[in-house]
Formats: sequence, C-alpha cells, structure tokens
Amino acid sequence: MPETPASSSDATFLADFHRVATIGATDNNGVDRQAATPEDAQTRDWMRTWAQSHGFEVRVDAIGNMFACLEFVPNAPYVLIGSHLDSQPLGGRFDGAYGVIAALFAALRIKEDVAEAGPTPKYNLAVVNWFNEEGGRFAPSIMGSSVYAGLFDLEEMLAVRDLEGTSVAEALSAIGCAGTDTPPEAISYAEIHIEQGRILEREATDIGVVESSWYTQKLDIDVIGEQSHTGATAMADRHDALVSGAKVVLAVHDVTNEFAEEALVSSVGQHVVEPNSPIVVPRRVHMVADLRSSDPEIVRAAREILLRRIDDIARGHDITINVEDFDIREKRFFPEAGVELAEKAVANEGLTIRRLETMAGHDSVAMNARVPAVMMFVPSVDGVSHCEREFTTDEDMVRGVGVLTRVAGELVHGELAGERDGEVWVGRSVRTGEKAQR
Amino acid sequence: MPETPASSSDATFLADFHRVATIGATDNNGVDRQAATPEDAQTRDWMRTWAQSHGFEVRVDAIGNMFACLEFVPNAPYVLIGSHLDSQPLGGRFDGAYGVIAALFAALRIKEDVAEAGPTPKYNLAVVNWFNEEGGRFAPSIMGSSVYAGLFDLEEMLAVRDLEGTSVAEALSAIGCAGTDTPPEAISYAEIHIEQGRILEREATDIGVVESSWYTQKLDIDVIGEQSHTGATAMADRHDALVSGAKVVLAVHDVTNEFAEEALVSSVGQHVVEPNSPIVVPRRVHMVADLRSSDPEIVRAAREILLRRIDDIARGHDITINVEDFDIREKRFFPEAGVELAEKAVANEGLTIRRLETMAGHDSVAMNARVPAVMMFVPSVDGVSHCEREFTTDEDMVRGVGVLTRVAGELVHGELAGERDGEVWVGRSVRTGEKAQR
Repeated sequence: MPETPASSSDATFLADFHRVATIGATDNNGVDRQAATPEDAQTRDWMRTWAQSHGFEVRVDAIGNMFACLEFVPNAPYVLIGSHLDSQPLGGRFDGAYGVIAALFAALRIKEDVAEAGPTPKYNLAVVNWFNEEGGRFAPSIMGSSVYAGLFDLEEMLAVRDLEGTSVAEALSAIGCAGTDTPPEAISYAEIHIEQGRILEREATDIGVVESSWYTQKLDIDVIGEQSHTGATAMADRHDALVSGAKVVLAVHDVTNEFAEEALVSSVGQHVVEPNSPIVVPRRVHMVADLRSSDPEIVRAAREILLRRIDDIARGHDITINVEDFDIREKRFFPEAGVELAEKAVANEGLTIRRLETMAGHDSVAMNARVPAVMMFVPSVDGVSHCEREFTTDEDMVRGVGVLTRVAGELVHGELAGERDGEVWVGRSVRTGEKAQR
Repeated sequence: MPETPASSSDATFLADFHRVATIGATDNNGVDRQAATPEDAQTRDWMRTWAQSHGFEVRVDAIGNMFACLEFVPNAPYVLIGSHLDSQPLGGRFDGAYGVIAALFAALRIKEDVAEAGPTPKYNLAVVNWFNEEGGRFAPSIMGSSVYAGLFDLEEMLAVRDLEGTSVAEALSAIGCAGTDTPPEAISYAEIHIEQGRILEREATDIGVVESSWYTQKLDIDVIGEQSHTGATAMADRHDALVSGAKVVLAVHDVTNEFAEEALVSSVGQHVVEPNSPIVVPRRVHMVADLRSSDPEIVRAAREILLRRIDDIARGHDITINVEDFDIREKRFFPEAGVELAEKAVANEGLTIRRLETMAGHDSVAMNARVPAVMMFVPSVDGVSHCEREFTTDEDMVRGVGVLTRVAGELVHGELAGERDGEVWVGRSVRTGEKAQR
C-alpha cells in the first residue's frame, strides 16, 4: 500500500473525527444526536459537505440512509462500508460515528490509490450512514439498514412515532432528509465499530472480527392496575400498577441467575408510569424488556420462566399484565470467508486479531441477511457504551481505519462477493416485528 | 327553613352538577381537568357565568383562586365555603367539584333566605374555587388555599413548573386567570367533600365530620446509576438505576407491614426513568414517595426504616440514591365547636353523622391553619377516588347540600368566629416545603 497522502492521513482522520464529536456534544464528553433531530441533521450536513468536497456523489433514500458513492465501473454493483451517525440520548461519541468516518477515509484512500493507476476495481464503493441505528427515539433500532436489507417494511417504518407523536416521515421531512434517490445496489458490506465490551482490552488484542450475533428479543409488558388516591385509599383496596411493575422489573433482572454467568443479559430500558402524579396510585406501567444470549434456547427458556413469574405477579395483585413478543432477531453467522479476509488484513497491518460474538445488534447484522458482510471491532476502554464515558484511543481508531481500508480494498476487487449463496454462510432468516398476543 | 325556591332547588343543583361533569369528561364517566388546562378554564367560566347571573361578585386572586362574593354587611369579613374544580388526570367527577357546586347552591339559598326578610347576617359570604388542589400537574397540591392561608409563598408557587416546563404563572396567564383582585378576608371556613374512603358507606351513615387530618410527608428519591448498552454490557458491569429503583418502590410499599394494619399508607405515584430508551440500561430514576398516618410517630419511624433500607440498596448496587424530605404536613385538629356545629345541623336535617379523620389532604386543612374550619364528608361508593369510577349518589349529594346550607347559615350569623384563638383548637403549625438533604 502506498504512503498515505495528506488528504487522507491519519492526522486528518483524527481531526475530522474529533470535530464531528463536537456536534451535539454533552457536558461530559458524550453526544446527544438522536435520529432526525437537529443534531443528527448537523452531522449529516457535515458528511455531505465532506463527501462532495472529496469527489463523492451523495444519495439519500426514502428511509433517510445516506450514501457517498464512488463509481469506478459503470453499472457495477457497490461494496458498501459504513455505520451510523445517530446516537443514544447522552450517548458516546464513538458508537457509530467512528465507523462512518473511518469508512469515509478508507474510501478516500482507495479512491486515491485507484487514481494513482492502481488495479481497476471490479465493483464500485459507497460509504453509508444508516438512519436510526440506535432506536432511542424511534423503535425498532437498526431501522435504516433493515429497510435497505428488506427485513423491515418502508411504509411501516415511516409511520413509526416517537413518544411525542412525531412520525419518522415527519421527522425526516423536518430535517430535509426524506430522500428520493435510488440507493446503490450492494454486492458486499463491511463495518468497523467499537467493541462495547472488554474482551479486546482485557486480552490486549488490536482488532476483533465477529463470527456471529446473539439471539435477541424484546417483550412489551403492560401492567394495568387501578388509579386511586395515595392518601385516601386503604392499602388493601389498592391495585398499584407500579408495585407490580417493580416486581416485573426485578423478575426480568433475576431471570439471568437461572443460567450460567453472563450467558443471558436482560434489562428493562423503557418504563413509563401513568398518570405519574405524586398523589395518585399508578394505574399503568408500560415497559420494554430486552433479552439476549448467544444461545437462542436460553432466551426461549428465560422467556418461559418470565411469563410464569409475571402471571404469578398478576394473580397475586389481582391486576392484568399483558405481554407481547416483538423484535425477535435470530442468531446469525457471518460468512467464514469474510472472517478470514479480516484476519489476513490484520496480519498484513502487523496487528493482532481474535474472533468473537456480538451481543449488540448492528447494521452489519441486518446487512448480512442481504449480502455477505464483515464486522470488525476496535477496543473500548472499560467496555462501556451508550454513555458519555465511552472511550477508544486515537491509536486504536487509526489502526481500525488501516484494517478497514485493506478489507474494503479486497472487497472492491471481488473478494467475498461469491460467498453470498455459499454453504459457509449458515445464517437463518431474521424474523422481526412478530407479535404474539398472550 | 322555608321551602326551597325553584332557582336553588335540589333538582337544579343536580342538573348543574351533572352538566359540569361533562366538562373534560373521559370515556369512563370520569373527568380530566388538571389545573390551568383548557378544561379547568371551562369549569371556571361556568362558575363565573353561574355566579354573576345569580347576583354574586366574582374576584380572582394572584394564585388563581376564584371567589363568588355576596356582601350582606359592608366591610365585614367573609365566611368562605367551597372546594376545588380541578381534577387528577383521568380523575373522578365528584372530588372537589361537588363541594364547589354544593357551596354555590348553599350560598344562593342563604341569599334568598336573607332577601325574604330573614335575620341580617353578621358576616358576608363567598364561595371559593381553590386553585390546584390536586397537584397532579403542579406540585405541591393544595396550592391555592395554602397560599391564601399564608402557608406557601405566592412567588415561589407561581414559579413552580410542570413536567413540560410550563410555570404556574404562565399557565394561569394562558387561561386568562392570573387575577389581580384582593381576595375577601375570611372569618371562618366550611367545606363538604366526598369521603374517598368506605367508613360512611359501611356504617350506613349520612355525613362524616372531620376531627383531624393525618400526618403526611413526601420523600423525593433520586436513584443515580450509570447508562449503558442493554445488549453489550455484561450484567456484572451494570449500574441499573431501574433495578435499584424497583427495590425502592417495593421498600416504600413493604414498610407498611412494619406497623398495624392500615396504620400507615404509602406509595410511589411519580416515577420517571431516564433516558427511557428500550436498549439503554437506565441511568436515573426520579420518584416521589408519599407516607401518611394518623400518628406522626409512625410516619417518622417508617421514614427511618426506609432511609436505612434505601442505604442498603444503594450500597448493594454501588449506586447513589439521594433522598429529601418535603411537603411535610402536621396532623391538625379541627375546632371542636365546628364539629358540634356540623352535628347539630345534621340532627336538624334528620340525618346521621359520625366523627372521623381524613387521610387525604384538603383545602380545609390549609384553611384551618388560618381560621376555624368545618370539614364534612358525604359517602363514596366503594371508597374509591382519584379515578374514573369514583361515585356518590344523587341522594347523598342533595343531603350534603342541605347540611352545608345549615352550617354556612350558622357561620354567617357569627357561629365559630370566636373559636379562632380558643383553646379547643389545638392544631399545630403546618410546616411545608421543608427540605433536608441526606
């Protein structure tokens, strides 16, 4: 690989990364750039300006995905590389944004390489910023890439509303990002992301490559009690939805103890109390529980235990608790040829690598359902993410850009494209949006 | 007492009561008329129109209390009778509104009685609609009467904000009810209200008269964990504010088991989770707990037990939980002469009465700190309140209007006025807004 010219140098990458981190910056070094907010719009504007000034053609599709395209071969399909620029509320500045900016610089290096009379690529290349990966404002998460991959219905997603009642369609229009462009057709996909765990840090390994994603599902839990006066209602006459709800929250937490340590993770992240008045016994608690495991059978068993426990709570308090399954995402395997491609690239960079699983969902998991995908991680300090103190060192970020550049370079020259229907790719189809009334 | 003329007849009272119940009506026979909302404004407009058309002079003070005044004796102080027209979210149609409309009809009967050459009253008479008794939108509750009674500071209350960030001052201006009138000076106070308990119903007694109010206090509890990714954070690395918060909710509930049955009531009514995203482990839960007992020592002992338990929860989960005391309302006794006045009036109406305590706060409890007050209850079916199925029969409502008319008639002729400094009134001063950082 030739020496990196100034326009795509590591120093320029770092300067741009840290500049983007000032958009929607929070007091404690995080960012707050939820999907289709003014802060999200600012990062999108930054990407558009950067891409156009470096000779990329920018397209925006109907769900707000942004593609910065480089056409090497007319009418050939595209290798897509990227991640997402949106964040959680009070989120970290690395999650997603690192992957998009790393991809911009990797693509620029490949463009410069090709321009310097390198071998002509077989495929074109585009950097993508997927819309609403985080799902903090609009559920489900991983929305833009799942629509692109054909896993979610476009119209259904445009109709999703946030807690204020604003739809995705309205929010995209409000920031001028309800696109009309046809997105580039993908042939393969690569993404680099922070690990959000502590395996790489603990083992002092430079890069992780993902072999498979965890099985995940959510439970929509609606606890229906009866509203009454906190001061005038005898304890025996109350049907307090929050007391029952608290027991459900603890049941969701405690079910992890039924399995091997860290074999199952669970939590309640969304939890809304009605009417939420200091002197009214709550009538309703609506919550979303999230269950994840490498082993689908563990999630299914945990779900069964929880349903029984929730039934006991409802009977014990003479209230109604409705539970619905949704957002079920099957365990998926990434193609072995992609894992080996990452291993080779890392070796050529003189770095170390290990294989691992991802507990978190990613755009690459959705894309892997459509085209062969490669998913790589750089280390996260303390393994924390979705919070302001999320951190990855400049050195690790720069290493990741080098590895992604090598992987993307192989992909545009045809690697992995044939694996799409190969037997090594054993992923099952993703089911989602499935609801089973209990 | 002469036969009731048509304009103040029981049938007219019931027709007006049920008409007001259509304002802000909900699907299940309740009302939603939180303080200073458009629905609250509509009931206030109804009262203004009714009062002016029946010859009352309407005044509105700076905290939005409405007074419908009848001047019998120039420059004499006023007997105040009334309650509140605001409701809880999805509240009942009787709580508060019954007392205001009953007072309007009682005042009209007294006015008609005086006009028919009855004895000249010693004092004037005004019907009051106290602002924001419920406190569902703006805490603390019992706001308007507490400002009038000198227990809360006017400017401090005007600056209180709802969960959307709107101040009381802004909300009052928005509905055109930021008054500038000097309120009438009170000499005594009477109120009739639904019981919100089931003692009268169980004992088949027509009227309750309140001897004392329960000791109450609130705890502001702030659980500070750390935000992280629900899918990527090992269970052992989480500091989930909602899991700890759920244990606090259960501790607040379970502390009642440490005392005799129903000697203490407790609950968490307000409970907000941040950031409230389905795939983020919560960083913060902010809640308000409400503790009430007839015996102040029981509340103090329960508070001590809770503080120790909360401390254990915080240590066990390595998170921070801040607790502040606020809205402490001392146990208060109503003047014995007022209780006896109610008993006499009930006997003269040929009805039955019993003495009881009130677990709930009322405007009369605040007013009793300023002038001698009489508080009476009519039965509540099933004892439920602050909910849509709150119910009192027409017959019981009509009986209450008769009793209130007799009591108010005695008050305007000078009864109870001398008790203000009498030794039978043994109430202690109300402390409120007191905060102790823990």
